[in-house]
Amino acid sequence: MEATATPSRHARKRVTSLSGGREEKSPPERTVYMDYNATTPLEPEVVRAVTEAMQEAWGNPSSPYPAGRKAKEMISSARESLAKMLSGDPRDIVFTSGGTESNNLVIHSVVKHFRKTHTPRGDSAERHSPAEGATPHIVTCTVEHDSIRLPLERAVEEQVAAVTFVPVSKVNGQAEAEDILAAVRPATCLVTVMLANNETGVVMPIPEISRRVKALNQQRAASGLPVILLHTDAAQALGKRRVDVRDLGVDFLTIVGHKFYGPRIGALYIRGLGERTPLHPMLFGGGQERNFRPGTENTPMIAGLGKAAELVTENCEAYEAHMRDVRDYLEERLVAEFGEKKVHLNSRFPGAERLPNTCNFSFRGPQLRGHSVLAQCRTLVASVGAACHSDHGDRPSPVLLSCGIPFDVARNALRLSVGRGTTRAEVDLAVQDLKRAVAQLEGQACAEAAS
Amino acid sequence: MEATATPSRHARKRVTSLSGGREEKSPPERTVYMDYNATTPLEPEVVRAVTEAMQEAWGNPSSPYPAGRKAKEMISSARESLAKMLSGDPRDIVFTSGGTESNNLVIHSVVKHFRKTHTPRGDSAERHSPAEGATPHIVTCTVEHDSIRLPLERAVEEQVAAVTFVPVSKVNGQAEAEDILAAVRPATCLVTVMLANNETGVVMPIPEISRRVKALNQQRAASGLPVILLHTDAAQALGKRRVDVRDLGVDFLTIVGHKFYGPRIGALYIRGLGERTPLHPMLFGGGQERNFRPGTENTPMIAGLGKAAELVTENCEAYEAHMRDVRDYLEERLVAEFGEKKVHLNSRFPGAERLPNTCNFSFRGPQLRGHSVLAQCRTLVASVGAACHSDHGDRPSPVLLSCGIPFDVARNALRLSVGRGTTRAEVDLAVQDLKRAVAQLEGQACAEAAS
Repeated sequence: MEATATPSRHARKRVTSLSGGREEKSPPERTVYMDYNATTPLEPEVVRAVTEAMQEAWGNPSSPYPAGRKAKEMISSARESLAKMLSGDPRDIVFTSGGTESNNLVIHSVVKHFRKTHTPRGDSAERHSPAEGATPHIVTCTVEHDSIRLPLERAVEEQVAAVTFVPVSKVNGQAEAEDILAAVRPATCLVTVMLANNETGVVMPIPEISRRVKALNQQRAASGLPVILLHTDAAQALGKRRVDVRDLGVDFLTIVGHKFYGPRIGALYIRGLGERTPLHPMLFGGGQERNFRPGTENTPMIAGLGKAAELVTENCEAYEAHMRDVRDYLEERLVAEFGEKKVHLNSRFPGAERLPNTCNFSFRGPQLRGHSVLAQCRTLVASVGAACHSDHGDRPSPVLLSCGIPFDVARNALRLSVGRGTTRAEVDLAVQDLKRAVAQLEGQACAEAAS
Repeated sequence: MEATATPSRHARKRVTSLSGGREEKSPPERTVYMDYNATTPLEPEVVRAVTEAMQEAWGNPSSPYPAGRKAKEMISSARESLAKMLSGDPRDIVFTSGGTESNNLVIHSVVKHFRKTHTPRGDSAERHSPAEGATPHIVTCTVEHDSIRLPLERAVEEQVAAVTFVPVSKVNGQAEAEDILAAVRPATCLVTVMLANNETGVVMPIPEISRRVKALNQQRAASGLPVILLHTDAAQALGKRRVDVRDLGVDFLTIVGHKFYGPRIGALYIRGLGERTPLHPMLFGGGQERNFRPGTENTPMIAGLGKAAELVTENCEAYEAHMRDVRDYLEERLVAEFGEKKVHLNSRFPGAERLPNTCNFSFRGPQLRGHSVLAQCRTLVASVGAACHSDHGDRPSPVLLSCGIPFDVARNALRLSVGRGTTRAEVDLAVQDLKRAVAQLEGQACAEAAS
């Protein structure tokens, strides 16, 4: 295949073939990376910010002399950039090691808070809440990332929390506000629903959930029931669509740098941190991040995260428009090349918004499992679902099954996610590559059938 | 003052005066950084490794295609470098976000394990341990870093563990094996003692504690008592003296990159991870680090940590010899310039080894509090103790008080810690600067008395 496309900024040469996982010698070939939902490269400005901070701001941010103060100022400035990206308050940002920590921290904190405030003290003169002595209850949906699902499952197993996993709609892939609210119990203290799904790109109706939860909280306050806090994991949404904590109306929001061309750390937004919204730390130590997240700050990565946030604040609409253009072109080309019967677009749900960069589709045909198709690809680099499930073999994605995608279709799913630098020419290359791969798999099948 | 010294690799210009914390305009002046126990600059090779990984290995390490595999291999190679630095097994290394996380994780894990294995199940037919139903007990010493002390205090407060804080010897500053062992109870499941103290540099007798704990464990096994695991926080020792987990005989060892010219992440060594020694994770998510520490790996910082470990493996003896030479010269010069009566060396304890780079001393005199002296310094950048306590005002260091340093002496303490690149010429500059600072403070006092 000829590499006729303008190379994208992040195109990489590849030196080994992907087929069958064997390390075959093959000539270096252009790759077209379409797995931006798994991770993104770092923007050159971000690399520069991290490198400069490593060289110029290596002082301990807790040290009172200039080298320490410089590092502290850099952290402070990054905190402002993050807040600006979300239209939030810098005092409401806590830096963490990444999305997994942010998500676990929210769950840890609300459970802890419930136990602190709703454990009977044996003092019968005190006024008791109707939820006193109950197990804290959390509502979430069935398509969350493992860093939400697994800590919740663990909490249930250890009997520290009860959890309702609300199925998403099989019509539109969304966790619907109606269903979320119906799952609320007297002891509910947290609703956690992702902002956009990593596999389908479906955007969840967080503002509507927020309005409903707030209205309910007013009634609950009158009955002495615990406040229900609202968390959203915005890992996949940030950098792909405008994220505004005021519009979303959330109490917690998870930020993950490496999904928006930033470094491998994260942050947590907590509305009115320590005043309106309590946060119980998981770690104890040297008092950094106002004791909410101690540990000597990773100044360089924080500086890089700040830079990545600045770029999003400045360019989000342009990124979104570009990605949507390229993704829509990809879906057009797929249908045009393979025909409507051969291609099933798995996440074009009626009435649901989705991320501008994500295309989840399946080829129909018994030989065309997602893994098999990708293994035949020479140019296209993509995935069948979340990267952390990449060793789960041929089992279909539970997310797609939850969304009502039939088993045989889900098993063949491919997730192509485009980035800021993906071009239409790259889309053409990817579609050509898929054509070759599909023809080869179907040819093999014919040959096997004939032999 | 003339800057006659050969500039060290890490010397930095300073543009503001430290006096009184005000931002005064003053001509850029040489600084002599002697706070390497607070943090170290990154070695240029480390900066290069991090930067290259940001550019070349940004793939998600869980992705099965070459970009992911490259990142995974880089992590694997860094794990080997860390293991080599400790003479340990790469399978026994788990990457974390830093020392605070590593220390908290050890405590979390042993408490969890105790509760899993020593909670009565109500099955009277089962054989019970004598410690069953007891609160897990942990032994530590009084001079640990806050990332050990505070989570332990919290565990006591929340009644999830009992803790004995064993005083260090007022003769030699060490946590003595005899005292540690004397604190053991039937329900003891962890002994955690730092390898070297951050303020005094005193090296703790970990090999001896380990021998005694192992012998005791054999007796305890016969009585069905829980095994006592041994943890050491090696944050300050790594890169300053050879650290060998076989000689130390520890089950857990905390690794902190930014104390040995590496990046702001860390790791935990766990002997026989998951087989000989259990580890209960604090976080749940995408399965990274064999589920012991999930979250998309910070490949660039891990690569940098690996490079920093390689440098230590190759050069540790040379680093140690150089630092000892410069530190000993510093102490000589201090005594020569100020006289034996004026200078109290706070950590030259008889019979105790100490780190080769740490000089903790006090000037005697009512005007010469540590903070006041540093505030008068124009060239020297140092601290009065741990960076995370830099806002604790004029209270004397609890660590020094624990070691038997008198209140008035401890209040005047300065911690000067030298690095790989510190020169004798820099020592001369620092001592000159201290002379000027002391003269000024004493002159001020005379003027005040005369007025």
